[in-house]
Amino acid sequence: MKRNTKVSTAVIRRLPRYYRHLSELQEAGVVRISSSALGKSMGLTASQIRQDLFCFGGFGQQGYGYKVDLLKEEVGEILGIGRGHTLVVLGTGNLGRAIIQNFRFSSIGFQLLAAFDISPAVVGTRIAGVPIYHADQLESFLAANRVDVGMLTVPIAAAQRMGDRLANAGVKGIWNFTNYEITCPREDVVVESVHFSDSLLALSYMISQRENPEEEYQ
Amino acid sequence: MKRNTKVSTAVIRRLPRYYRHLSELQEAGVVRISSSALGKSMGLTASQIRQDLFCFGGFGQQGYGYKVDLLKEEVGEILGIGRGHTLVVLGTGNLGRAIIQNFRFSSIGFQLLAAFDISPAVVGTRIAGVPIYHADQLESFLAANRVDVGMLTVPIAAAQRMGDRLANAGVKGIWNFTNYEITCPREDVVVESVHFSDSLLALSYMISQRENPEEEYQ
Repeated sequence: MKRNTKVSTAVIRRLPRYYRHLSELQEAGVVRISSSALGKSMGLTASQIRQDLFCFGGFGQQGYGYKVDLLKEEVGEILGIGRGHTLVVLGTGNLGRAIIQNFRFSSIGFQLLAAFDISPAVVGTRIAGVPIYHADQLESFLAANRVDVGMLTVPIAAAQRMGDRLANAGVKGIWNFTNYEITCPREDVVVESVHFSDSLLALSYMISQRENPEEEYQ
Repeated sequence: MKRNTKVSTAVIRRLPRYYRHLSELQEAGVVRISSSALGKSMGLTASQIRQDLFCFGGFGQQGYGYKVDLLKEEVGEILGIGRGHTLVVLGTGNLGRAIIQNFRFSSIGFQLLAAFDISPAVVGTRIAGVPIYHADQLESFLAANRVDVGMLTVPIAAAQRMGDRLANAGVKGIWNFTNYEITCPREDVVVESVHFSDSLLALSYMISQRENPEEEYQ
C-alpha cells in the first residue's frame, strides 16, 4: 500500500483508537460504515476521519463508506499487528499481575513469553500460564529468545536500572508503567510510558471546567 | 489570570505532562528554565511550549525563561489541583488494589475516600488505610459524601452498570480502566478512559517502523 510520508504523532495516537472501534463494530456485526458514523462513535468529524485515513493511502470509496473488516485489517497492518511481536513482563506485583491476567495481548498480535521477578514467593511459579523467572535470568532469556518489548511494572526505585538492562539486552521497545520517566541508554529503543496521573489530571481539568466554566472564559 | 477562550484538546492533554515535568524539575532543584530547555526535556519545540502556555495567558518573561515553581503552580491551578477533588474506587481486584496502594492521589490534589467491592473476603477490610464497603452501599455513601470522581476497575461485564450507578448517584467524572467504552447516561458527567491497548499499539507501530522504515516511506 502506498502511504504518504509525513504522519503526525496525533494521527499515530489515533490509529489504535480506530483499531479498537473497528474491532467493536465488527463484533457488533457492522459490515460497512460511513466516515460520519465512524466519526460520531469516535468523537471526531467525518473530515478528520477522511484526512487521517488518507495519510495512510486512503481507503474507502466516495459515497460508499468503509468496509469495516477491510479497514480494520489495513489499520492493523499499519500498527504492526501480525508481525508476531513478543513481550516479557518485569515485575509481578499487583499491577504486573493484573495486566498478565486480564490484558488480551493476543488480540493485538502480541505474545507474552515470560515474566521476571526477584521474590522467592513467585519465582518458579506461573501466572495465567506465564512462567516467572528470576530477574537474574533476564539477559540469558533475551539472548535465547527474540523479545520485542519489555513491560516495566517494577517499583520506581528499580525503573531506570531495569530499563537499562532491557535496552542493553536488545529489546526494541519498553512499555513503562513505573510512573518514572526513564532515559533510554540506546537511541534505537522506543520508550512508551503509561502515566495514570496524566489521565486523572485531564479528568480533573474537565470537571473543574464544568464546575466553574466562567473562570476559563473571562 | 486572563486566558484565551479556545483551548484545544491537544493542549489540554499536554498540560498534565507539563505539570509532571515541572514537578520533577522542582524536585531536582531547578529554579528557572528556558522554553527551549523545557521543550527538550518534554520532546517539544520551544515555540510549541510558548504557544501552549500562551493559551493560558502567557507566563514567563522574554529572555528570562520560566520560574519553575510559579509555572507549576499556575498549571496546577488550571488543572484543578487545589480544588480538593475526591474519589472512590469501584473494584478492588489486582488493578484496583495496585492503584490504591501505589498511586499518589494527594500529589495531584485528589483524596481517596473509599473503595467498593462485592467480595465478602475484602468488604469490611482496608487497603492502604482506605475502607472497603459493599457495592450496595455506593448510593448511600455518595449521598452522604461529596464525591467528584468514581474510578472503575470492575470486571468488564459490570462496567456499564457500575458506570450508570456512579453517574446517576452524582459523580462529575468517571475514570474508566475497564477497557470497555461505557456510554454515560448523563451529559454532565465526563468519562476518561485509560486504554492500555492504545498505548501498546502505539509502541507496536513505532517498533514496526524501525524494523521496516521503507514500508511507510515508499
